[in-house]
Amino acid sequence: MAINRRLALSATGALLASPAMLPGTAAQQAPAAAPAAQAPGFYRFRVGGFLVTTVHDGFFARPLDGFVRNAPLADVQAAAAAAFLPTDRQVIPFTITFVQRGDTLAVFDTGNGVTPAGATAGRMIANMAAAGIDPARVTHVIHSHFHGDHVNGLLNAEGGRAFSNAQVLVPEAEWAWWTNAGNETRSPEGQRGNFANVARRFAPYQGRVTPFGAAAEVIPGITAIAAPGHTPGHTIFRIADGDAQMIFMADVTNRPEIMMPNPSWQIVFDFDGDAAAATRRRVLDMVATDRIRVTGYHFPFPANGFVARAGNGFRFVPADWSSAV
Amino acid sequence: MAINRRLALSATGALLASPAMLPGTAAQQAPAAAPAAQAPGFYRFRVGGFLVTTVHDGFFARPLDGFVRNAPLADVQAAAAAAFLPTDRQVIPFTITFVQRGDTLAVFDTGNGVTPAGATAGRMIANMAAAGIDPARVTHVIHSHFHGDHVNGLLNAEGGRAFSNAQVLVPEAEWAWWTNAGNETRSPEGQRGNFANVARRFAPYQGRVTPFGAAAEVIPGITAIAAPGHTPGHTIFRIADGDAQMIFMADVTNRPEIMMPNPSWQIVFDFDGDAAAATRRRVLDMVATDRIRVTGYHFPFPANGFVARAGNGFRFVPADWSSAV
Repeated sequence: MAINRRLALSATGALLASPAMLPGTAAQQAPAAAPAAQAPGFYRFRVGGFLVTTVHDGFFARPLDGFVRNAPLADVQAAAAAAFLPTDRQVIPFTITFVQRGDTLAVFDTGNGVTPAGATAGRMIANMAAAGIDPARVTHVIHSHFHGDHVNGLLNAEGGRAFSNAQVLVPEAEWAWWTNAGNETRSPEGQRGNFANVARRFAPYQGRVTPFGAAAEVIPGITAIAAPGHTPGHTIFRIADGDAQMIFMADVTNRPEIMMPNPSWQIVFDFDGDAAAATRRRVLDMVATDRIRVTGYHFPFPANGFVARAGNGFRFVPADWSSAV
Repeated sequence: MAINRRLALSATGALLASPAMLPGTAAQQAPAAAPAAQAPGFYRFRVGGFLVTTVHDGFFARPLDGFVRNAPLADVQAAAAAAFLPTDRQVIPFTITFVQRGDTLAVFDTGNGVTPAGATAGRMIANMAAAGIDPARVTHVIHSHFHGDHVNGLLNAEGGRAFSNAQVLVPEAEWAWWTNAGNETRSPEGQRGNFANVARRFAPYQGRVTPFGAAAEVIPGITAIAAPGHTPGHTIFRIADGDAQMIFMADVTNRPEIMMPNPSWQIVFDFDGDAAAATRRRVLDMVATDRIRVTGYHFPFPANGFVARAGNGFRFVPADWSSAV
């Protein structure tokens, strides 16, 4: 029977490759039970001539208490319950957006990089492999901002360049802030570790880092849109080809189920909460009005969809999953 | 570099296994470009001691015009637009729910089976292979109803049993209707083909088919709930282990984005539209009130989530995707 042959051949692959890449293969080790491995965390769709692949890096869970700074915990819990999310903790997923056209393969931010064994994050490289994306083929790393979960993946396990051949494009305002030690005392206490971390993560890319301006076309078809507040130089990007477009919203919102209905909420990771909230409202207004497809770094995987107005706020509408790319 | 080694090994697998199973392998054929293959269509989660795997069978597109029988096309188009779905066609996805506990591996309905080359449906067997599920290991096929997209996959390419070792459990009322030729003229014209199709699809399972009653525990932990209207014996199922439970909603709704906000809409595939609408309202009331996790045959992949009240109707809330099973 064809399927048994395929399973057997897949099991052959398992002797060579990691289980994460070949979810079907655990059947060989335990013939009586389906393996409990999750499907590989990547998803593909097209935006005009761009092939977009979102790649999951896992998640991080923290207490819900203290996550939103300017709303009572009970209100935040109610928002979580309305979205059928846990009310004791905030599960923060990480999903990285890759866009490819011709010889250009760009990635927005770099994930959490190398994490300790047992960590729930740090799965980007394995999921890239499942998607057939070799980090050595990445031509451009384009950063939205410099928080650790967005830059730590610049380094591989040896502390070298995880993206060995990439140019690194960074928002001018973000680079200026975090590379000037004089700004450390002017930063919120919880963010001061970024100064040393940025120095360390960018070190092996010397001569490869290029700052870009607030509204620059960073590479053909990809344009920066300043979105300050979450960090001083936080930036989002429009990917456009003819009439087709999408916007990578980076950290304009954390989980959209919590933040889109409550755009004035400010979270513990916001550098300047008032500015972050103003940016959030402005960007959500824009993508809702123009019905622009969006991806987001902390959106539920596969992290792509649309934004609709709802009440005094907004609502995230996941895009339909399709087996056709 | 570790990742290059893994990619190379994955490419070795590609010589043996089908591209659909190893999405990373096209890189070997075209080193400069990421492959455009979609991720395998399966997803796992747990309900108490049950391991649930939803498996995608692809989709079918038909004109939106004529899909809803008792609402103006403009209203249906507005519902589609509000959900960021196409307004010219109804894309109907198919996702099959497997549940496993101990030596029991049950599947609810069987997909579209063998389809012509180039068809957008018929991917269940390939996606089962990606998930490590061998059809020969399925112990129970449990049917919700006998429409073609739910029973055609009983047969393999040779016309034999696709699930060679399975018992087939069928709703008594459904079996009684479609196996009695006297009912043909009492069925809607568009459904009369089901009589011959049911005879053909169940033929190789002679002696393996067991009808069950309207509220039977069909196997331990899985209980039938009569949900008539879409067909005479349409049935849904509660899967329960201790406090944990979910309900497989089968065709209580077609796409939830269209049907949950408008539970009184009747679709072209409903055998008895009034009964289907009454069942729909009753089941949606129940799962919304009790916040019960649901899967559905035509829900957007991965086809699992929750139902919330919204206005005069309901809203589907996809469950959070997690890399942790």
